[in-house]
Amino acid sequence: MREAFHGDLARLGEQLSAMCARSAVAMRQATTALLGADLPLAEQVLGADAELDLLRSQCEEQAHSLLALQAPVAGDLRLVLSAVYCADKIERMGDLAAHIADTARFTHPAHAVPDELTGKFAELGRITAGMADRIGELISAPAEGSFAELEQCDHGVDALHAEVFEIITAPEWPHGAASASSLALVARFYERFGDQSVSVARRLEFAATGDLPS
Amino acid sequence: MREAFHGDLARLGEQLSAMCARSAVAMRQATTALLGADLPLAEQVLGADAELDLLRSQCEEQAHSLLALQAPVAGDLRLVLSAVYCADKIERMGDLAAHIADTARFTHPAHAVPDELTGKFAELGRITAGMADRIGELISAPAEGSFAELEQCDHGVDALHAEVFEIITAPEWPHGAASASSLALVARFYERFGDQSVSVARRLEFAATGDLPS
Repeated sequence: MREAFHGDLARLGEQLSAMCARSAVAMRQATTALLGADLPLAEQVLGADAELDLLRSQCEEQAHSLLALQAPVAGDLRLVLSAVYCADKIERMGDLAAHIADTARFTHPAHAVPDELTGKFAELGRITAGMADRIGELISAPAEGSFAELEQCDHGVDALHAEVFEIITAPEWPHGAASASSLALVARFYERFGDQSVSVARRLEFAATGDLPS
Repeated sequence: MREAFHGDLARLGEQLSAMCARSAVAMRQATTALLGADLPLAEQVLGADAELDLLRSQCEEQAHSLLALQAPVAGDLRLVLSAVYCADKIERMGDLAAHIADTARFTHPAHAVPDELTGKFAELGRITAGMADRIGELISAPAEGSFAELEQCDHGVDALHAEVFEIITAPEWPHGAASASSLALVARFYERFGDQSVSVARRLEFAATGDLPS
């Protein structure tokens, strides 16, 4: 029974890691589509999002049946509930990447990001996709200090987000209110993607130790 | 045992309803603070958010101990897991109200919302706070068709959100890019608050019927 439980738990972890890998791919492709005004790639990201939604509901169903059939307690219970929590957040990361792709699609054939900001958005995409990859690794191989590590990445995201916001709201911004509004939202999608990754890392630390890092 | 379980479950429901009531208050006050550039009220909303975070972790702990001690199955398991899910979403609703209050604080003593848009934001505040109240009622008294009902409200929110976005991104927008960027985000906070309320209603219907409405 216990062996079966741990086998099921390992499968759940693999599914979560697979979800992280997909959300990382979605984020990289969405950023490429955004910066290159690449409509087919944007549509690919939008189309792939449904798969992530499906993976999430599969994770959730699997967790529910684990709870119903095996009634785990203590650390095992925490692991299963953390998996449900993480699946929700990782699905949301996919949604945020899809929102970025949607901006690329909506703005096409124009570029949503003016030249002077492409560096910052490329960096936002690089860091956030890396965060998704990293939590995928941490799910299969938990490591001490992972919450602090992800939080560190997130500080970088927050700083870039603040820089973008400062630029688009400066009196000398030359691209108009519509462009600024759209970029304010896009920058926020990256920031939220980072936040969700941190929530996942926080929950993984809780699953491992029983304490929610604050 | 079963009676104790249902007593505990009822208490969990009361806590969730209390969280909804608080998030509705936060949304009403945040909207008043936003439209009236009311700094003390904005600070009150920001200060109260920690209580909602605490209530959420209490709900979660209670749900975990219910699962560990009583190992519910089938419908009972669904109810407990739905409570955990809803607590997360309602806490997020509080965060979104706090973000709106934060915009009021940041912009003070200026008004973040120009006169021509106060009607739309007042309406966004009215509908979304009403959605939070309604899910609070539905938790204590589940009703058929509640998901459809909340979705209907959310269509109203989405329409207002789209109208605001159209106005702030129009070429004739006279208040500049900084104001447009800030309003794009604020309008999105209302829209997300509505989305979260719908997710809660969806989950309540799942808890009651075993089917996730799509």
